[in-house]
Amino acid sequence: MSVLAEAGMISFARGIPAPEMFPADELAEAAQRAFARHRATALNYGPPAGFAPLREWIAAEHGAAPGQIVITPGSYILLTFLVRVLLDAPGPVVVEVPSYDGAVSLRGSTARRILPVRRDETGLDFARLEHYLATGERPAFCYLLPTFHNPTGTTLATADRERLVDLAIGHDLLLVEDDPYGRLRFAGAEPPSLRSLLVARGAGELSVFMSSFSKVVAPGLRVGYGVLPERLAQRVAAVALDTYVSPPLWPQAEIYEFLAGGFLPAHLSRIRELLRLRRDALVTRLAAGLDGAGARWSNPDGGYFVWLELPAQLSAADLLADCERAGVTFVPGPGFFADGGGASSARLCFSFHDVEDIAAGADRLVAAARGRLVGVGAA
Amino acid sequence: MSVLAEAGMISFARGIPAPEMFPADELAEAAQRAFARHRATALNYGPPAGFAPLREWIAAEHGAAPGQIVITPGSYILLTFLVRVLLDAPGPVVVEVPSYDGAVSLRGSTARRILPVRRDETGLDFARLEHYLATGERPAFCYLLPTFHNPTGTTLATADRERLVDLAIGHDLLLVEDDPYGRLRFAGAEPPSLRSLLVARGAGELSVFMSSFSKVVAPGLRVGYGVLPERLAQRVAAVALDTYVSPPLWPQAEIYEFLAGGFLPAHLSRIRELLRLRRDALVTRLAAGLDGAGARWSNPDGGYFVWLELPAQLSAADLLADCERAGVTFVPGPGFFADGGGASSARLCFSFHDVEDIAAGADRLVAAARGRLVGVGAA
Repeated sequence: MSVLAEAGMISFARGIPAPEMFPADELAEAAQRAFARHRATALNYGPPAGFAPLREWIAAEHGAAPGQIVITPGSYILLTFLVRVLLDAPGPVVVEVPSYDGAVSLRGSTARRILPVRRDETGLDFARLEHYLATGERPAFCYLLPTFHNPTGTTLATADRERLVDLAIGHDLLLVEDDPYGRLRFAGAEPPSLRSLLVARGAGELSVFMSSFSKVVAPGLRVGYGVLPERLAQRVAAVALDTYVSPPLWPQAEIYEFLAGGFLPAHLSRIRELLRLRRDALVTRLAAGLDGAGARWSNPDGGYFVWLELPAQLSAADLLADCERAGVTFVPGPGFFADGGGASSARLCFSFHDVEDIAAGADRLVAAARGRLVGVGAA
Repeated sequence: MSVLAEAGMISFARGIPAPEMFPADELAEAAQRAFARHRATALNYGPPAGFAPLREWIAAEHGAAPGQIVITPGSYILLTFLVRVLLDAPGPVVVEVPSYDGAVSLRGSTARRILPVRRDETGLDFARLEHYLATGERPAFCYLLPTFHNPTGTTLATADRERLVDLAIGHDLLLVEDDPYGRLRFAGAEPPSLRSLLVARGAGELSVFMSSFSKVVAPGLRVGYGVLPERLAQRVAAVALDTYVSPPLWPQAEIYEFLAGGFLPAHLSRIRELLRLRRDALVTRLAAGLDGAGARWSNPDGGYFVWLELPAQLSAADLLADCERAGVTFVPGPGFFADGGGASSARLCFSFHDVEDIAAGADRLVAAARGRLVGVGAA
């Protein structure tokens, strides 16, 4: 039982890994190799785009050139760099609704106009996106989380990805594809990335692919990265230089030796299974407690998140107040909506607690929700 | 002989440590302790102000509260955070001339008015600073490098520090004291920090102290820090949160175990001696080659830099062109001057090359300078 749970509170709020998911022994071994092999370079100042061997490893994985890779301390700061660079281009920004709250608040801090496009378990609202493009909008870029989407946990089908790529090519639209969770698949088949589809069509210049080792290895190392058109990579690296002179090369060297040492596949198998059991615990309890109560929830094939949609008359903020008294928390929907909305939705993160805590937390949540449903006469 | 030197070029340009200065074996040991002790916390997301045990260590060293400490990936980004936070206050910014080029260009990127104050081997131009304050200027803050100043290598005398503190208290002036090199003293007695003098006068609220483990341990870990008034520390931490969500906690844990393991004192003794020998090599050759030629140079008691002032009719940019052809580089003065000037000055960094390379580089520099001096009829 975790510290939080011992203190009585079970959190479905923060999207962070559980300590038992860290491959600490393998990282310790990788660190020793890094000290033996990279002490002269990775302990010093170095290139703003990151540690060269890791850039090469990532490039090879993505069939890209090392010059297309920029490694940053986490992928969030990379997103802020991208926004700074891409703000040079005119036009609004297409954003899924809902979307990652960090991206929503970031775009709120710019003066850029947002074109919201609904995203739910059925996919993307193409009619809306096509309407924008047909009426002459020229977006600077489109920000998407195609796989194990934050906050809904849903994944865009291959047909939707192909349709997006068609639109991107037809309208010269840059697709910024944020994929921190893609490697955490525990069920189902993996659809092609937007990047791979664009590259196959000779339109790699329209692709920015972002990911991170935060959810895959450990966030405390802060190793995120982007695969970008080379000219854009150079501009992002220039912003990185202005921001921190030199990135934390040392944790990049540690991650590199973890990858080069072949530790990743077995580690991924282990954490995928941990995540699958946690999703099962959550979804099973939601089904046991809320079936027939007018609520819906996603059942993701990977990642960290279940999206809970309550009956429309039920406020997630009100439910959260009840839940906090009952010892469970989550993030209510509105923070993920660039255009308002989400009042009856909740993001439930199942990564942090073990299955016993998740079951207990879900039971508390279900009891609070049923109490509210009785109150509004819906159950 | 280093890679650069083998390639024929000896660099007095970049202020970076030499690989042989990194305590790599001790860091490897510290890393293993960190994996044993901090895997559950420092591998995860965590507080934007940094790894708690390291905050406590730094606080204890400075007689401060842990809440006053913010740890950042290098101290440069901390300076940018400070500028963002302190821009809320009205007024211009007092800057030494010359000063750290990163700070000079940073302030150039803000709309803030600069009040330049000359800094040389005799100290600070107090008459100018007092004139600003007497004529009603209310600076937002004063940015200073009191010890082993970048670029001049000079150190403010205790009397000057006391005079600065008097002015700060008399005029409610915030002193931002940047001290990345203070621990690298290889000669002379250590004067009190501005922070310690302000605290002794009950005016700790007027002190921001910045430093870093980049020059003391290794820059690739990116561990810089500030000791700030608690309210300011909270505002800086909020900017850090907005910038990268969570800092690279892992290298902070590695640095913490290096410090807690008691590795620092012996390591400092070793690198101070390396630096002393390098300074000696540089200054000895300058004296042998340029005595009587109308040039002056600083003879620092620590840090990385010798400041060379050429006869006024000699352009450092012209000299650099000759030097590059002869296989030696340096940074000409103008980049360090917020108000223009520095045309006949040069920063010579003696940290990177070994004594043989430094001697060879200095000989090349001397030969080029004497060639120029003959050209302008000065030697």
